[in-house]
Amino acid sequence: MISCTPIGHVRNSVTRMSEGHWAKVESEIHIDEVYAAGLQGLEDFSHVMVVFYLHEAQGFDPAKQLLRHPRGMEHLREVGVFAQRTKYRPNPIGVTSVELRSIRGNVAVVRGLDALDGTPVLDLKPYMPMFDRIDDARVPAWVGQFMEGYF
Amino acid sequence: MISCTPIGHVRNSVTRMSEGHWAKVESEIHIDEVYAAGLQGLEDFSHVMVVFYLHEAQGFDPAKQLLRHPRGMEHLREVGVFAQRTKYRPNPIGVTSVELRSIRGNVAVVRGLDALDGTPVLDLKPYMPMFDRIDDARVPAWVGQFMEGYF
Repeated sequence: MISCTPIGHVRNSVTRMSEGHWAKVESEIHIDEVYAAGLQGLEDFSHVMVVFYLHEAQGFDPAKQLLRHPRGMEHLREVGVFAQRTKYRPNPIGVTSVELRSIRGNVAVVRGLDALDGTPVLDLKPYMPMFDRIDDARVPAWVGQFMEGYF
Repeated sequence: MISCTPIGHVRNSVTRMSEGHWAKVESEIHIDEVYAAGLQGLEDFSHVMVVFYLHEAQGFDPAKQLLRHPRGMEHLREVGVFAQRTKYRPNPIGVTSVELRSIRGNVAVVRGLDALDGTPVLDLKPYMPMFDRIDDARVPAWVGQFMEGYF
């Protein structure tokens, strides 16, 4: 068993997982004061990777959630949880790279984060293309359908 | 406090953080049998995002590690932990996107993972360009120096 402590929390206007249209959502990430100095220099990056805990998706049930139709779309074949980005995961950790709008004191303002108001944040990392951008990644055909309307 | 349970472990030939040359390292990710079915369909993706726990980097000390010279390079100015990819983090969680070579039973074989033998794995996610690939990301100038020889 591994223990983590949130470094801060998301503040935005989204209180229900509405499945979609995250692109325009602006969120504040409030970093706890003890860690606020850790934001120094992040403003020089255009994007940040947010590692967060999907607190509303706890209680993974292998019998129901290990294999699923992506986003409940029954015309797609079932695939495993590790081949999907569903929030129902053994460890409900989300990783989303988003545009960094500004940093004001202990608050990072980002756009496009698919997390609810109150979501605990575990880590922020600068988006570094040499780590994070893969230009030639292949995905299966169903991904195109799966993503419609998400952002 | 948030609790996570590893879904599996990394097996490779790297037993010390050698700072570099990870590109050629081949690793097996052994998924616990209870979660093995969750790999189904992952073979249709070329790359996978590995979320892992940097178990050798526990015990974050804010006084020493909240602000650091990137990779100990003293000619670079100090920046905050959230503007770096250092393993010494409040929650030592690594996120690295790597090439998926094959899946055999409960074992995913990947190349380029910067994790030691025995590292607990918290999650696998398929690399999806619409989420993960940001084409216009800007980084500060020091990142170019910082990355020399890492991969």
